[in-house]
Amino acid sequence: MDKLTVVKVGGKIVEGDDDLNRFLADFSKIEGYKILVHGGGRLATKVATQLGIESRMIDGRRITDAETLKVVTMVYGGWVNKMIVAHLQALDINAVGLTGADMNVIRSVKRPVQTIDYGFAGDIEKVDTHRLGMLLLQDIVPVMAPLTHDKQGNLLNTNADTIAAETAKALAGMFDTTLIYCFEKSGVLRDEEDERSVIREIDKDLFLQYRDQGVIQGGMIPKLENAFRAIDAGVKRVVITKASDIQNKNGTLLQN
Amino acid sequence: MDKLTVVKVGGKIVEGDDDLNRFLADFSKIEGYKILVHGGGRLATKVATQLGIESRMIDGRRITDAETLKVVTMVYGGWVNKMIVAHLQALDINAVGLTGADMNVIRSVKRPVQTIDYGFAGDIEKVDTHRLGMLLLQDIVPVMAPLTHDKQGNLLNTNADTIAAETAKALAGMFDTTLIYCFEKSGVLRDEEDERSVIREIDKDLFLQYRDQGVIQGGMIPKLENAFRAIDAGVKRVVITKASDIQNKNGTLLQN
Repeated sequence: MDKLTVVKVGGKIVEGDDDLNRFLADFSKIEGYKILVHGGGRLATKVATQLGIESRMIDGRRITDAETLKVVTMVYGGWVNKMIVAHLQALDINAVGLTGADMNVIRSVKRPVQTIDYGFAGDIEKVDTHRLGMLLLQDIVPVMAPLTHDKQGNLLNTNADTIAAETAKALAGMFDTTLIYCFEKSGVLRDEEDERSVIREIDKDLFLQYRDQGVIQGGMIPKLENAFRAIDAGVKRVVITKASDIQNKNGTLLQN
Repeated sequence: MDKLTVVKVGGKIVEGDDDLNRFLADFSKIEGYKILVHGGGRLATKVATQLGIESRMIDGRRITDAETLKVVTMVYGGWVNKMIVAHLQALDINAVGLTGADMNVIRSVKRPVQTIDYGFAGDIEKVDTHRLGMLLLQDIVPVMAPLTHDKQGNLLNTNADTIAAETAKALAGMFDTTLIYCFEKSGVLRDEEDERSVIREIDKDLFLQYRDQGVIQGGMIPKLENAFRAIDAGVKRVVITKASDIQNKNGTLLQN
């Protein structure tokens, strides 16, 4: 099977021009087919503040009312997405910026209200592997903003980690797929304070052991749970690393 | 040859939900291949004002400094473009939102500074007919924002009328192409005050005659000059009409 790499990069990297340029240069050198999924939450918060719209978060998830939806559509789908696409074009990567609404590549359902009303937030229902596969085979590199739609006319704010995982899972049957999560740290750390304490490889048993010992905690737990679900669904490798290290892949590896 | 209709709709229509819904429903019923090119200038001015950025226009063209470029990228490429795409998806039209940077479909050059520095404004150099043609043949409907790029990493603010004309001209060799310009009036009027005075059909001789007599004046002159250039370049028909009338086509017709 041909190789596919799905890279998720957070909002922080897109704020700094130098960091972004270096990251995109590294990304452009990844061999084989590739997809970039980006965040942009920090910029959205900044623009919302400038527009006098309060950003409300619960457990790191944004409450997306109608006004906030406009802001994230502008920031994720417009500014961040198109800036990345234009930069990649300059690096001779034929990128196309997509939300889930474009070509109907990711359809979601508006998150049902249980205790919390997240507003226009989407839970992914279907990734169109046919369309994405067609683009990849034409040497187009999809750049995906964290927005999907419900096929009823509504855009929905959707977690970028989840978009990356669901896209990788959906395409795992067509490609030998690697999923790379970029974040601030070098990888999953044994000691939060020590960047050299990266756990090089982790499997489910080790994860459960570290979790029970409290070595792995906080936001890393759902991240790893998602990663293992991707592996279970056929993704060959998940790498958790720094955005500045996607070439060397010195982060934490999970593999099938 | 298969039929292709390129429709350009202004920024005003995208501001009103009802008008937009009606327009998109009409657009969705156009038979054959189709492309939608949209503006959004009025919304960009509104958002710029909210962000404390002054909008400077010369002869109806926006001066696009770095801050303004961010605003138009957010408004045109994000909000307006993705809202239209999501609405079309609800109408079972498989739309994809594109700027010129996406798939490198339209490459421009930053407008050279002569007497006026327009900033990040683009003059179109090349429309990629191969990519656009491929999308159309896959029953994808391109929805084009008035933004292009220079292939060197810069997005460029680009007139939507020009994008529509250049796209129609570029595709005229592959498709039997109609270009529809939607604006506020029913068509080119003999009497500006009388909506019933639409000139049903116009050729170059009649245009020159009306222009010399002062019947046609102001912004309509460059619009018609562009339209005749499109006809000269192989576009079969240009229609100038109201956004609410793209089905009936009761506007002004230019034909080859």
